Amino acid sequence: MNALTPLGMVSELPSENQTNELRPERCADESPGDDSKDYFVERDGMKFAGMHLLVDLWDASHLNEPDYIDAALCEAALAAQATILHSHFHHFAPSGGVSGVVVLAESHISIHTWPERNFAAIDIFMCGACDPYASLPVLRRAFSPARVDIGEQRRGRIS
Amino acid sequence: MNALTPLGMVSELPSENQTNELRPERCADESPGDDSKDYFVERDGMKFAGMHLLVDLWDASHLNEPDYIDAALCEAALAAQATILHSHFHHFAPSGGVSGVVVLAESHISIHTWPERNFAAIDIFMCGACDPYASLPVLRRAFSPARVDIGEQRRGRIS
Repeated sequence: MNALTPLGMVSELPSENQTNELRPERCADESPGDDSKDYFVERDGMKFAGMHLLVDLWDASHLNEPDYIDAALCEAALAAQATILHSHFHHFAPSGGVSGVVVLAESHISIHTWPERNFAAIDIFMCGACDPYASLPVLRRAFSPARVDIGEQRRGRIS
Repeated sequence: MNALTPLGMVSELPSENQTNELRPERCADESPGDDSKDYFVERDGMKFAGMHLLVDLWDASHLNEPDYIDAALCEAALAAQATILHSHFHHFAPSGGVSGVVVLAESHISIHTWPERNFAAIDIFMCGACDPYASLPVLRRAFSPARVDIGEQRRGRIS
């Protein structure tokens, strides 16, 4: 996140919060420690592992700013009530563009940007009760895209 | 990767290779340093940013082994001629399951596993000339799934 990001090419959330001591629970809305737990979710009469949104931003801004993007994606994760485990963002030079990911207890948010086309490809994968759609207003506000294309996939659907 | 992974809950590729000195190029097959470069790819008469495969593995093995998964995904990335920038894998306890990602110069490979169901959701996003389908034999060999569901998305399609 922004306040924690060192100067330089790579921004990264410190890894101290992924130790055995914290033990963040997978799909954090579920009750922890129950070995018999079924972590698949049930929604709209379907049972599946998690919701995966593929979000293409067009005519977007701030796509060559790794620290800004890191902060925006972390804010988007928190807006969906997700638990951040790790973040890593890489700034390409001299071509420009950023690739990065926020790893969540509930899966991940990733981004890859093509600033020369004002285009970004984001994916938001969340299991448990987290709603990936709750991340979208944060992303719209952060990147001001003229157009947003959204594809929804229910991963691991079994019914 | 396996040889570099410290013991413990989190496996992570050291970040020394993401410094300004190395400057891995985005979509590494493209000629570097040309500011006017168009990083979108053209294939089968379509122009788009990158190919994104959503790969669901069923009845798979080794899904609760972060170091093994890290090594497998790195091998899968290299099989597609991708350039690895960073990897991070988180092992959930006590519930089991692994979440992780390999960040590439050509985008990413991510995985989230539900070992209690022998299910894993993988996504392989690659731009440039890298072929994400070249990663699949490595993943099949590593995880021995009885069934593989593959969805293909062409992200940022403009024609």
